[in-house]
Amino acid sequence: MSLSEFEIIRKYFKSAELALKKEEILLGIGDDAAILDVSSDNQLVVSTDILVESVHFPATATPSKIATRALLVNLSDLAAMGAQPLCFTMALVLNDSSESWLKSFSEGLAKIAQRYKIALVGGDLSKGPTTIAIQVHGIAKPGKVLRRNAANIGDLIYVTGTLGDGAISLASLGVSPHVGDFFRFNDEQIPLDCVQYFEQAFYEPKPRLDFAKQSAEYINSAIDISDGLIGDLGHICKCSGVGAILKVEDFPYSDSARCCVSAKNRLLAALYGGDDYELCVTVTKKNQQQFIAKANETNTKITCIGEIIEGNLIHYLNERGEKVRFDDKAFQHF
Amino acid sequence: MSLSEFEIIRKYFKSAELALKKEEILLGIGDDAAILDVSSDNQLVVSTDILVESVHFPATATPSKIATRALLVNLSDLAAMGAQPLCFTMALVLNDSSESWLKSFSEGLAKIAQRYKIALVGGDLSKGPTTIAIQVHGIAKPGKVLRRNAANIGDLIYVTGTLGDGAISLASLGVSPHVGDFFRFNDEQIPLDCVQYFEQAFYEPKPRLDFAKQSAEYINSAIDISDGLIGDLGHICKCSGVGAILKVEDFPYSDSARCCVSAKNRLLAALYGGDDYELCVTVTKKNQQQFIAKANETNTKITCIGEIIEGNLIHYLNERGEKVRFDDKAFQHF
Repeated sequence: MSLSEFEIIRKYFKSAELALKKEEILLGIGDDAAILDVSSDNQLVVSTDILVESVHFPATATPSKIATRALLVNLSDLAAMGAQPLCFTMALVLNDSSESWLKSFSEGLAKIAQRYKIALVGGDLSKGPTTIAIQVHGIAKPGKVLRRNAANIGDLIYVTGTLGDGAISLASLGVSPHVGDFFRFNDEQIPLDCVQYFEQAFYEPKPRLDFAKQSAEYINSAIDISDGLIGDLGHICKCSGVGAILKVEDFPYSDSARCCVSAKNRLLAALYGGDDYELCVTVTKKNQQQFIAKANETNTKITCIGEIIEGNLIHYLNERGEKVRFDDKAFQHF
Repeated sequence: MSLSEFEIIRKYFKSAELALKKEEILLGIGDDAAILDVSSDNQLVVSTDILVESVHFPATATPSKIATRALLVNLSDLAAMGAQPLCFTMALVLNDSSESWLKSFSEGLAKIAQRYKIALVGGDLSKGPTTIAIQVHGIAKPGKVLRRNAANIGDLIYVTGTLGDGAISLASLGVSPHVGDFFRFNDEQIPLDCVQYFEQAFYEPKPRLDFAKQSAEYINSAIDISDGLIGDLGHICKCSGVGAILKVEDFPYSDSARCCVSAKNRLLAALYGGDDYELCVTVTKKNQQQFIAKANETNTKITCIGEIIEGNLIHYLNERGEKVRFDDKAFQHF
């Protein structure tokens, strides 16, 4: 690469499209650290997600798409807390990347930064196996932050969007699927419109920021289901000291998932596949109507998939109406 | 690895030694994000540094040492801002790591977290080429933050500690030296006590947190010199619209650097080598005595190495007393 580290930063990452100006950001890129001034009316919400080539995205992915996904999956954690985006830092490890790579990456990043009004305030750049470590900062009013530990017995369990697309998309892109060896597409040849749908779903997941903000007052407990529904709903249950029963026949799937994947594999992808950047929330029954109204206002598809019950396990009802326990293995990196 | 991702987090990263309790941390590890409440009396200072195996540390390094260095180099950025440590997040990419690896890494991390009272509040764990991306958060009083852009003509230029040890140490550890092809040790066989000194200097750099906090009111401008003195002092000059003249004969070196490396190579390591986590600061002459007193109070070795002058270049005086310009190449990853 002909550009120096400092030239790369100046040319591709210190642009007005990325280093957005915000009242709370006193100092952005260009010193040893950024300086934030968050008023005492707000709390700061902090989360980090790292993406590794060939693990989280295929080595052939376009840089723009890698960038959109890297930032969007981080924004999903802010959504799960009911926080609004403020700024992010990024540590970028690159292996012999060209200016065209950097330009495309920077453009993808800027597209999402603009869309969600999140400013790049600092970072680090190194040579090595391509890896993107982003950390996001969001703002929330005290008492409005959504936590995992406040589900109550009798709460309805809702999910946003569709389930299983994350894992199915990863498999469709040829990355070693996190869904496990069980997973197969119905046909080796996936229809082109489904390929396009999965690609879009993978590289541009929709962080449910507006939905979470608008409906926060009607939600008891929330998590994003990036590790698979069983694992993540399991966190809610463990932290809240409750169990859950799921209506698997009501799970929402995309048309593409229905087209390309058997019912059994769709279900397994939803339960254990991970990489769905949707929210799983619990809602007191008396708040259900207001909650649905807020979802409609923010054009967010929601589906009731079960209920919080006593105990500490997640169950489903089999065809004979008997309560059966799920295996509790979520997507595991190790 | 037999442990799951969640078990690893619980066993090695959610410990009381790492997840320190602090008033400003409302929620630490264990949700989609951490929640901080920084009072309106304080500003938040945020920085990130990433370490990649075989680039920033040898593949044979013990996990404990990798951890100490990863956290310490990040703390150095807080020192350069005059901020006090609050908390950090860590994205950790591991390649087939064992429990003994994790135990050692966690112990090294906890040692530094305890020493500098910085709490681990969140992170991400993934499989892949070993990489540690840490982001630190510090706190500073408004108006007390140290910046790069406030050096004045006539300021004295001081550095803490010794120069060149970072680059020389990296070379002594057998990692492709950032000092360039010019670099040679005097002898192939480095004396054992020097090897030990370099190893300690590399894995446990001393972030100058107390010094920066105590002497902040007497400092005009500060930077940490992790990219080499010429590059980093160059940032101060550029941001402040000034030049500098250096007294290279006054540069501070360690006994081990003097023992093992020629005067010319020591100088080049200091100027261009990088990886020195010391501070370069500029001080108005009238504040010099108070500044020196604060350095003494915090047991910090400081050396005056030059002066801020008009212009925009960094010079030295040659043996005939003529001003000569330095090459402005700092350590560059690309």
